[in-house]
Amino acid sequence: MVRPAPVAPLLALAFLLTACGVTRPTPAPTTTALGPVERILANGVRVVVQEFRASEVVALQLWVRAGGRDEAASELGLAHYLEHMLFKGTTTRPRGFVERDVEAAGGRINAGTSLDFTYYHVVLPAARARDAIEMLADVAVNSSLDPRELELEKKVVLEEMRLGEDSPRRRLVRQLYERLFDGHPYGRPVLGTPELVRGLARETLRSFYRRHYVPEAFTLVVVGPVTPGEVLAAAEGTLGRLPRGGVSRLPAPPPPPLVPVRLDTERPGSQAHLALGWLAPRLDSAETPVVDLLAAILGQSRSARLVQALREREPVVSSISAGYSALEAAGVVTVTAQLEPANLGRAEAGILAEIGRLRSAGVTPEELRRAVTAAEARHAFSLETAEGRAFGYGRAETIWRLEEELAYIDRVRSVTAEQVRQAARRYLDPERYVRLAFVPRPR
Amino acid sequence: MVRPAPVAPLLALAFLLTACGVTRPTPAPTTTALGPVERILANGVRVVVQEFRASEVVALQLWVRAGGRDEAASELGLAHYLEHMLFKGTTTRPRGFVERDVEAAGGRINAGTSLDFTYYHVVLPAARARDAIEMLADVAVNSSLDPRELELEKKVVLEEMRLGEDSPRRRLVRQLYERLFDGHPYGRPVLGTPELVRGLARETLRSFYRRHYVPEAFTLVVVGPVTPGEVLAAAEGTLGRLPRGGVSRLPAPPPPPLVPVRLDTERPGSQAHLALGWLAPRLDSAETPVVDLLAAILGQSRSARLVQALREREPVVSSISAGYSALEAAGVVTVTAQLEPANLGRAEAGILAEIGRLRSAGVTPEELRRAVTAAEARHAFSLETAEGRAFGYGRAETIWRLEEELAYIDRVRSVTAEQVRQAARRYLDPERYVRLAFVPRPR
Repeated sequence: MVRPAPVAPLLALAFLLTACGVTRPTPAPTTTALGPVERILANGVRVVVQEFRASEVVALQLWVRAGGRDEAASELGLAHYLEHMLFKGTTTRPRGFVERDVEAAGGRINAGTSLDFTYYHVVLPAARARDAIEMLADVAVNSSLDPRELELEKKVVLEEMRLGEDSPRRRLVRQLYERLFDGHPYGRPVLGTPELVRGLARETLRSFYRRHYVPEAFTLVVVGPVTPGEVLAAAEGTLGRLPRGGVSRLPAPPPPPLVPVRLDTERPGSQAHLALGWLAPRLDSAETPVVDLLAAILGQSRSARLVQALREREPVVSSISAGYSALEAAGVVTVTAQLEPANLGRAEAGILAEIGRLRSAGVTPEELRRAVTAAEARHAFSLETAEGRAFGYGRAETIWRLEEELAYIDRVRSVTAEQVRQAARRYLDPERYVRLAFVPRPR
Repeated sequence: MVRPAPVAPLLALAFLLTACGVTRPTPAPTTTALGPVERILANGVRVVVQEFRASEVVALQLWVRAGGRDEAASELGLAHYLEHMLFKGTTTRPRGFVERDVEAAGGRINAGTSLDFTYYHVVLPAARARDAIEMLADVAVNSSLDPRELELEKKVVLEEMRLGEDSPRRRLVRQLYERLFDGHPYGRPVLGTPELVRGLARETLRSFYRRHYVPEAFTLVVVGPVTPGEVLAAAEGTLGRLPRGGVSRLPAPPPPPLVPVRLDTERPGSQAHLALGWLAPRLDSAETPVVDLLAAILGQSRSARLVQALREREPVVSSISAGYSALEAAGVVTVTAQLEPANLGRAEAGILAEIGRLRSAGVTPEELRRAVTAAEARHAFSLETAEGRAFGYGRAETIWRLEEELAYIDRVRSVTAEQVRQAARRYLDPERYVRLAFVPRPR
């Protein structure tokens, strides 16, 4: 429940949640049902624009085909470090431009780095869309990588690492990736290591920037009350003028075969954490919608198999969930649980028993229907805001295909119960998986 | 920056952030520029509907004209406690209906209680709008207030109180309200007191429910891809059938004149907290847009007066901000800061000096423009989602007027620099205010 303080932030904010715009019919009513427009500029920059007139807010995102997996072993953490530095000033924008320019216009700016990509996103009132495109083009290639800022930022990144380490679940999942992708770029930490971050030199970062931040690696996504022609012209006049980099990204190699691992690690705390992992289809597989539903039926709601069997009917765990992450070169199905240390064996056996039942008897029509409904709902929520739409388009255009993204929920709807059972048989081998546990350190 | 873990929640979620719907042009393109439709049913229930086709998500909110200020001194916390209990089952919906019905449909449900109102809100795929209206009508009058659930919920509410107490800023602002509204209902805690919560009897709660949850107190707001006629019919067939309560709510009395207070309270911690408060216009005043801009210029951005003077130019405080809360019967302007205890005197003097300058020399056109831009941006963000729109309409219809809400941002745009100066002179008396401070307890 929302906290009901007399001056809760919600209320303070809400005072300006007014709605006058909607009472004035626009001269030429526009529909929000138009699809995105896609264009590749002469130098290789991709542009995706969607006119979306739900509000006056425009979302602008610059996606870069460079992430953790593009780093050499000596470069771990560079993609992420660069993401931080791009907010620290360019040759024409001094340090502090985020607060000065973006926040002064009422906007917000943020960024994220993953194994497959890095992206920068801005949301602000539509009148400022052109300025934001210019700013994104500027940070994309003109970041000054100021040596003093670079040193100062080390503290921030090291702190981010410590926070990640403090979360048992995050740490456990990262270790699961290390084991599932042993020797593969997906097995490496996106944040790098404290040693590499402490010793990071400007020249190293600059070289990574020059190599990976090139027109062929960029996708600009703009969603909001904009005219596609104007956005395309602005993109041409900014990102479109950059000289080609002339290098293309190496495809990520397929993952090595899974090597089963069982490992207990001691950690402070009173609860144990358990994680099981399997390799699963990569993002562009025809089976991603099937495995999505499989993971949902296993453990993504209160009525899911594992939740019912191991928490509701007989409380072996205090929480349990299943997930499917589809990356460009491989996917991962995980089951994670939090539990009393004494229940580790029973929990693992219970998880495998449920998976065995799924593999032999399959799923019920009712289970499948619920999972499709949940997927439709998440889909609908993701389309509510300009930012949510832009994220889906940008990610698809960067590491997948926009048309696949647009057709995805229809694929989900057409999945059959038998396909789910077959996917469980194909991917969830009850004899070959990685199993990691954190167990409380005896005091 | 977004945390870039390989399986960050953002990515896991994002996999279903697909966007197929937008590629199929709807047969009859609809515009989002239509205003809300307002209707009062025969028994007094108000209904506000807006067809808003930005996505497939519908927001449904039940607003109730009952909040902290409607409680007698012996009833403190009842409005909030009732808000919690309404999710615990009705005569036809067993405990757990939230997870079972709402989450199974892919929806979310929540609620909030303030001094002036309580509201319940649901967002879910539009196909389930009718079910949600039925559910809201059911919880509105048929809550079973199960004695066992009531006892169990005491722990939850007491924990919520403890959390509020742990936040120095929340606690300080609550104490500011106690002093500004001494003897007035706005001076009382919405959560009640631990003693009253521990001793709460079902009959007391039930009596409050019967008295305040009546048709005349309800507003149903529905925003999303719905047909207003169908929503109105569903409202007629559910909420519209309830018998009138026949009692109308007492208007909140005007606040007593401000009695200046200066108070230091010891608290654990190393930093000090300072809060200054003044009485300001109530929500329906013609001056609310002016005072909104005044507060923004004083302390709601990096370029604001107090932030520049007391943090950027000369670091007297580690953070400082100003705010304006407009309630139904009165408003409050607050300035809060976090600082080294040794700087308390300098900070207060600095705040008063800036207020003095505002009162004598007024604001610059540039400051006013920036504040209007920020207000426009917040306004635009609030209209992005069905939920944001519904909140604005519901609040306006409950404690203000919908047409004022719809005109509000235009009012903000027409404010002059001289009006802001006059408001500073009228409301921010540098000799009459409440000043509270938390100072670290000596160890």
